[in-house]
Amino acid sequence: MKHLLSFVAISFLFACKNDQDKNTIEDQVPILDLTQFVNPMIGTSKMGHVFPGATAPFGMVQLSPQTNFETLHNSDGSYNTETYAYCAGYQYRDSTIIGFSHTNFSGTGHSDLGDFLVMPTIGNLVLDPLQTPEGGKGFYSTFSHEKEIASPGYYKVDLDSYGITAELTSSERVGFHQYTFPSTEEAHIILDMVYNVYHHENKNVWTFIRVENDSTITGYRQTKGWARDRKVFFAAIFSKPFKSYGHKKYDQIKYDGFYRRFHQEENFPEMAGHDLRAYFNFDTQDGEQIKLKFALSSVSSAGAMKNLDAEIPHWDFNKTREETKAKWNRELSKIEIQTITPEDKITFYTALYHTNLSPIIYEDVDGQYRGLDQNIHASDGFTNYTIFSLWDTYRALHPLYNITQPQRNNDMIKSMLAHQEQSVHHMLPIWSHYANENWCMIGYHATSVIADAMVKNVGDFDKKQALKASVTTANVDYFEGIGDYKTYQFVPDDKSHSSVSKTLEYAYNDWCIAQMARVVSDQKTEKEFAARSQYYKNVYDASIGFMRPKLSNGEFKKDFDPMDTHGQGFIEGNAWNYGLYVPQDLDEMVRMMGGKERFAQHLDSLFTMEIADKYIEKHEDITRDGIIGNYVHGNEPGHHIPYLYNWTGHPEKTQARVRMILDSMYDATVEGLCGNDDAGQMSAWYIFSSLGFYPVTPGTPFYALGSPKLEMAVLHLENGNTLTIKANNQSSDNVYVKKISLNGTPVQGLSISHHDLMRGGELIFEMSSTP
Amino acid sequence: MKHLLSFVAISFLFACKNDQDKNTIEDQVPILDLTQFVNPMIGTSKMGHVFPGATAPFGMVQLSPQTNFETLHNSDGSYNTETYAYCAGYQYRDSTIIGFSHTNFSGTGHSDLGDFLVMPTIGNLVLDPLQTPEGGKGFYSTFSHEKEIASPGYYKVDLDSYGITAELTSSERVGFHQYTFPSTEEAHIILDMVYNVYHHENKNVWTFIRVENDSTITGYRQTKGWARDRKVFFAAIFSKPFKSYGHKKYDQIKYDGFYRRFHQEENFPEMAGHDLRAYFNFDTQDGEQIKLKFALSSVSSAGAMKNLDAEIPHWDFNKTREETKAKWNRELSKIEIQTITPEDKITFYTALYHTNLSPIIYEDVDGQYRGLDQNIHASDGFTNYTIFSLWDTYRALHPLYNITQPQRNNDMIKSMLAHQEQSVHHMLPIWSHYANENWCMIGYHATSVIADAMVKNVGDFDKKQALKASVTTANVDYFEGIGDYKTYQFVPDDKSHSSVSKTLEYAYNDWCIAQMARVVSDQKTEKEFAARSQYYKNVYDASIGFMRPKLSNGEFKKDFDPMDTHGQGFIEGNAWNYGLYVPQDLDEMVRMMGGKERFAQHLDSLFTMEIADKYIEKHEDITRDGIIGNYVHGNEPGHHIPYLYNWTGHPEKTQARVRMILDSMYDATVEGLCGNDDAGQMSAWYIFSSLGFYPVTPGTPFYALGSPKLEMAVLHLENGNTLTIKANNQSSDNVYVKKISLNGTPVQGLSISHHDLMRGGELIFEMSSTP
Repeated sequence: MKHLLSFVAISFLFACKNDQDKNTIEDQVPILDLTQFVNPMIGTSKMGHVFPGATAPFGMVQLSPQTNFETLHNSDGSYNTETYAYCAGYQYRDSTIIGFSHTNFSGTGHSDLGDFLVMPTIGNLVLDPLQTPEGGKGFYSTFSHEKEIASPGYYKVDLDSYGITAELTSSERVGFHQYTFPSTEEAHIILDMVYNVYHHENKNVWTFIRVENDSTITGYRQTKGWARDRKVFFAAIFSKPFKSYGHKKYDQIKYDGFYRRFHQEENFPEMAGHDLRAYFNFDTQDGEQIKLKFALSSVSSAGAMKNLDAEIPHWDFNKTREETKAKWNRELSKIEIQTITPEDKITFYTALYHTNLSPIIYEDVDGQYRGLDQNIHASDGFTNYTIFSLWDTYRALHPLYNITQPQRNNDMIKSMLAHQEQSVHHMLPIWSHYANENWCMIGYHATSVIADAMVKNVGDFDKKQALKASVTTANVDYFEGIGDYKTYQFVPDDKSHSSVSKTLEYAYNDWCIAQMARVVSDQKTEKEFAARSQYYKNVYDASIGFMRPKLSNGEFKKDFDPMDTHGQGFIEGNAWNYGLYVPQDLDEMVRMMGGKERFAQHLDSLFTMEIADKYIEKHEDITRDGIIGNYVHGNEPGHHIPYLYNWTGHPEKTQARVRMILDSMYDATVEGLCGNDDAGQMSAWYIFSSLGFYPVTPGTPFYALGSPKLEMAVLHLENGNTLTIKANNQSSDNVYVKKISLNGTPVQGLSISHHDLMRGGELIFEMSSTP
Repeated sequence: MKHLLSFVAISFLFACKNDQDKNTIEDQVPILDLTQFVNPMIGTSKMGHVFPGATAPFGMVQLSPQTNFETLHNSDGSYNTETYAYCAGYQYRDSTIIGFSHTNFSGTGHSDLGDFLVMPTIGNLVLDPLQTPEGGKGFYSTFSHEKEIASPGYYKVDLDSYGITAELTSSERVGFHQYTFPSTEEAHIILDMVYNVYHHENKNVWTFIRVENDSTITGYRQTKGWARDRKVFFAAIFSKPFKSYGHKKYDQIKYDGFYRRFHQEENFPEMAGHDLRAYFNFDTQDGEQIKLKFALSSVSSAGAMKNLDAEIPHWDFNKTREETKAKWNRELSKIEIQTITPEDKITFYTALYHTNLSPIIYEDVDGQYRGLDQNIHASDGFTNYTIFSLWDTYRALHPLYNITQPQRNNDMIKSMLAHQEQSVHHMLPIWSHYANENWCMIGYHATSVIADAMVKNVGDFDKKQALKASVTTANVDYFEGIGDYKTYQFVPDDKSHSSVSKTLEYAYNDWCIAQMARVVSDQKTEKEFAARSQYYKNVYDASIGFMRPKLSNGEFKKDFDPMDTHGQGFIEGNAWNYGLYVPQDLDEMVRMMGGKERFAQHLDSLFTMEIADKYIEKHEDITRDGIIGNYVHGNEPGHHIPYLYNWTGHPEKTQARVRMILDSMYDATVEGLCGNDDAGQMSAWYIFSSLGFYPVTPGTPFYALGSPKLEMAVLHLENGNTLTIKANNQSSDNVYVKKISLNGTPVQGLSISHHDLMRGGELIFEMSSTP
């Protein structure tokens, strides 16, 4: 952290470089406010799946408005599960808010969370969010974007239905609400324990609230959704004692008669049930502010109270807001930029912001957290993280962390190793989700994150343990066809779904394990996994030039359609795009697929072909917005493809495509993300590509060179060095790179080394309008 | 514990007294085996509600067979809630066993528990307990009592359907199973996470099993039944690796698609759901024993594993059996007896056994336990207990502990004070149930337990804290009419059910608080609560001579039926019997009710009247078996009544009635309990009355004298003293007491002081056949 502060301190953009000793000024706060260039609203429309609410960098609390209105219920009152648009609880198109919840995913392709919805209201108490049983209005409020402010760590909105102004800020583990009420004897703050992002029957396993005194409440919720057994505890304090309180249960659970005999809905300090909404009543003067500090913990309500006491012991809302803003400026100031347009700066810093939202810190202030075995563990010498959406994030997000967040990436890897130790499957995380493995998507890409860190010399995690954990993971035979993959040297399509995707990803992951083995000089393991990394060849059908599903009898599956994304051995992709997934062996893949020219033609076709609607509508993750020809930027498996021209002798085509994608797939509007941000992966692609290079093969210390979009960038590295990237003669038309030099030496070839960049200095691109 | 051992060592019955120094022989094991006189089968028929399985004294594990067959399902396959007969999971009349569960109440009047049902089977795997969906036989087995053995800490039965012999023993926190199989390649051990004593829809909130390795499993279950939010964790080890395993889910819960994609029923080491049954498969040789150690914890599976490692680190079944037997002999040897008949000895020691089954230890070996706030607490300098069925047990069980278990009773009071500190209601326990308050029955009788210990000088708990906790409890106005009771000086029947019973009990509890206040010299509190203790008078209707429900307007409720147990202001009783509940002011009550002769006549009528069937059938707790006239021995509120003749100048009638009850309401058969043992209260009544005295008014240090049933008893007191009780000229006809002397001095009056008894010596009753 000391280093981070010093980076910030010396980062007064280009106008105010200084040469002061780094260590003497480390406690200075940055003068520069880069949060002004972040617009959390970007991507909140359509499929971006990001949230506009208040959170600290990597914070455990994501306190954000829920507009999940239109799709929360079907017209018959039942819950509607078609809530894919609401993965982060918010859609810009909506004009109503039903409350503010404390947990939200950023950009995921599936839904969960939304814990502890809080909503202030006035007037007659209404405890139904949408409609009362009598057909009256629910407790939601209308709002307008004109009366809405979102910036890093701060959110404000006028709740027009009630004349209440809501403000939110957050520390890492504590959400801080500030509600400005009109004068009324009927002010209410509702705590809705029912609400889920993606609610469905029986999702709430149990909810529990205790009224500890006239202003303090504690409790927990257990849900089984995407995470099968997820417990979140809370402790919350109101700034003013409530005058009365109560609750209503919506579930049909019959309590035992003995219990029922002594159960009341009002002023009874213990409330529990599946589907429970509580309310707290106040008198307010006009303009009176009621504040609420709401802390989370995965351990216990006592843990949550500890977090609350440690992080926000006061009632100064603005102090917390400013502290969190300062934390954001520290993170954002790691990369200072100069852009062609003002909008580009906003797009860039918002992308950088999005790369700092998850993984999230997953431990109490004392290091305790609930592990996969439901036992309480304590992180030992590291900060524990969760939300590893690894099929997405190993591609560019974790490689980006090896530049911007090496300490956190080290802690994330240690968190993955702890996960592996706790896993009864003895597996590294696939998708780590609040002490649950939700098994989302395929491959064992934690191996990529680990290998990438190892070859880039990032972190002090135990490399031999990491290799062992990876080898163990790669040998869990019952996991998604691994046993068959080992037996047949490919995943047979008659034994497992997504057989080609799995074969390709396992082969890449195995190559990653071989890289780790090389680093720790374990030649036997290196050889074994290097051999496995070649299995991708076994699903290539040279007769048609495509990767193709193969059966256990050794024959290719008949009736093959390389355009179809369903039932053709691929998941969320097709043979045309996902079939190019051999990042570990690109020269050989290009040779295998007919050589450089033919491969370049394949890419040309991919980017320019027209695809029929029937191939589009099938998958929720792929919409026209994120597609260029048959290249899908709105989803992950092709994110390396624009850079593959480099392997065909046509780097100029990479440069043009990359700039075209940067310009067309991202902007500074609410629709600025062409698909799910996927926990930061889409944004990390933007950051890398804007800087002029991309980690096509995580697990090597090399980046493929592309075409920078920025005019200048100054990277304040955690090792104390500064890397300045300049794009001379930069313009929106000058997308081609004439030459590149690093510290005055021309860069040969089409890649650049991580280690060279980490030494700092100047990386200069000479841009041109012609190839 | 040192003292206990020495008591045992010197207790070789009357035949082998010795004068060895107590401290030099304390590590000797008792020569005397008193467990031979305990028959856990007594009371397992009809309404005794006791279990025959294996448990250590006050053990957290009660590992016992479940014959809950006939009533588990209705004929349509739905669960039958008419399972009142199965509060302890077992009914002697049954001929089938569906498995062995690890937790069972002893003698309660309501149902819960039954956690972690284990059943060994062979042949085709069947996972349905009663009937397969195809109509085949479930996994239950037939058995016969001829092949069944039950003794303290040990249970054995032949499972005739499978040719398997099952043996069970237990330490405090670990159940130990030993199954002897025939030769088969299809041996199974089923772990049924669905089963509950009193199962009903949605009772299981969540169940979770992890297969840690080829012989170790962990997990937990959360239920909402009588206890609303109850979590029990386990860790278990099989003595032999299973060759395969799997599970089946019976619930209709839809998991998320992503999870389902990677979920299999066989050999998948993580299982979770509402209604889950797992199986573990083995090959066995003929006569091969598979053992299973199954540890519980309220904290975590890690806690359970700690308990397992600490208590049973080996695989020697007989060693644990012998250790637990020795623990039982230590407890039983505190009272050595000589009886008129051999059966009496069995009845007595089985009753003594029943008084040592609950409250149960509720903490891990390291002192940690889950509290009422769902946070983890640690006992500090005491052992934490739960299962306080206080409306029952304050009467005689806790007073008995002040003689036989003062150290444990001290710890129980400390547990109650910890409960009060954790309670969001700030109340002492009403019915403490595994970190839940189940609110069963009325009054705040923890105050009686505390007052009784204080006036008897038992324990080192903080007396001022205890008083404060009691006063706080007595002022929780929203609890069951306390606010109204304070306002009106009685509980108005139009505002609260059971108004007369509540008024009487609150008045007694308030008197208990006054006694505590006197002990700590808090005169203000003593005066306040002494005044409240007189409120019983406000529900007495002198015009009819009965306690009677009164309305908030000050008028008695019309249409009063003093025989009816429903809707007449009483709960589980009527005005005839429950209306005599003024233990704190008996002389005044007798005076108020017309004087000694009239009161004696009331008692005579009570014991001899014939009551119509319509008054009997209404309450499940009261059957003809436990009734003498209108006196109900099978339930608690009249347990003091036989002794009330002492207050009328007719002690001979007390003596006759007490002996009559001892002889007619208890015996050494499976029907030996005339009603629910009620967590030991019925048995404690037997112990006291057999010894010749009874605590009519807990909170005074005096016992009412009755008629001993024993010939001789030697009480080895925890203070090192020995009290010998002799009944000279004892016989089944000589029920009258001619005179009594203590250490040679005649006892005057009809009571005897606790303090005098605790000094030890000889208490001699001279018996006679005439009054």
